[in-house]
Amino acid sequence: MLKLFYSPGSCAVASHITLEEAGTPYETVRLDFAAGEQRRPEYLAINPKGRVPALATDRGILTETPAILAFIAQSFPQARLAPLDDAFAFARVQAFNSYLCATVHVAHAHRIRGYRWVDASDEAALAAMKRKVPQSVGECFELIEREMLAGPWVTGEAYTIADPYLFTLSGWLKADGVDPARFPKVLDHRRRMAERPAVKAVLAAEKA
Amino acid sequence: MLKLFYSPGSCAVASHITLEEAGTPYETVRLDFAAGEQRRPEYLAINPKGRVPALATDRGILTETPAILAFIAQSFPQARLAPLDDAFAFARVQAFNSYLCATVHVAHAHRIRGYRWVDASDEAALAAMKRKVPQSVGECFELIEREMLAGPWVTGEAYTIADPYLFTLSGWLKADGVDPARFPKVLDHRRRMAERPAVKAVLAAEKA
Repeated sequence: MLKLFYSPGSCAVASHITLEEAGTPYETVRLDFAAGEQRRPEYLAINPKGRVPALATDRGILTETPAILAFIAQSFPQARLAPLDDAFAFARVQAFNSYLCATVHVAHAHRIRGYRWVDASDEAALAAMKRKVPQSVGECFELIEREMLAGPWVTGEAYTIADPYLFTLSGWLKADGVDPARFPKVLDHRRRMAERPAVKAVLAAEKA
Repeated sequence: MLKLFYSPGSCAVASHITLEEAGTPYETVRLDFAAGEQRRPEYLAINPKGRVPALATDRGILTETPAILAFIAQSFPQARLAPLDDAFAFARVQAFNSYLCATVHVAHAHRIRGYRWVDASDEAALAAMKRKVPQSVGECFELIEREMLAGPWVTGEAYTIADPYLFTLSGWLKADGVDPARFPKVLDHRRRMAERPAVKAVLAAEKA
């Protein structure tokens, strides 16, 4: 059985929702980031990066949200979570998820994980990064709102693995100092996502 | 015909090599980043992100290296550039490419593109980011060397779309202040890549 390692409210929410949408049985293991569980030897043996999500399969461990989401979509084709028979449409989904992973999530991470990119004792540089986040994350979502979110779902009429990932990252806007009201299409997407039974189930499970 | 927008020596090298490996005719359009061509309206109409690579197809534009590489592999299955019939093996390739895109390339980018994450006039913060790059990029390649590069190719016996991407980013080590000699498997991979006719052709074309 697939087993997801996650921490509540992290980017692993996207994988968690996608497992639920796939309609397959799965287990979850919750990591307490505040207690540093992601850096303990037991977890580093599973994911040497010390991050979430990680998905344990009967063939081994998978990491990286875009890869995990595509794996779930390909493994459970009956759930229709990606355009698996159309290389171009699949690539559009992947490009969207890659942008979320490498640009949007990275911009966000400069608010509280700036120590990845400057010396952890450099308070001034850490503060400088934090100050830029409302602008950098805001610009990402302007591009998403204007150019990338077709509606009603990310790529148009069909729900795909791009949707839970956008939902996960758009949930961080307020904390990043960006007013979600600037992005009506993103807000509409959030409302639509929140109505899905899989999303309700996952949010309830992560809060429990 | 597929058309690749690139700038020489950028991460678009990975897509360029993969097009060459696919054995399909393609065109290229070179952008002069020093002259700011990536921010001109003509190019922003193609890729609003103002970055490379972008791949023009008869269905529209694709961006983001991991998505472009997978698209080429799926569009030209006879070139055997990815394990297309094995969702787990495909996901391992995708996870590797996602790590290169969202962690390794991002760590590298703090050397000369720090203005993405702090105010462009904050010289001290930009310098602080630059100082950290040898450490952050070095740690990424320690993980790649120790845990991720199976050898002789990234995922083992078969060459995949993970290989040109690693080759592209490992070519930046020296400029990032990291001694490539610390990573014998990565160096061996670079030598092996440099012998491939597709790699020779692309490096010659980008230099011409």
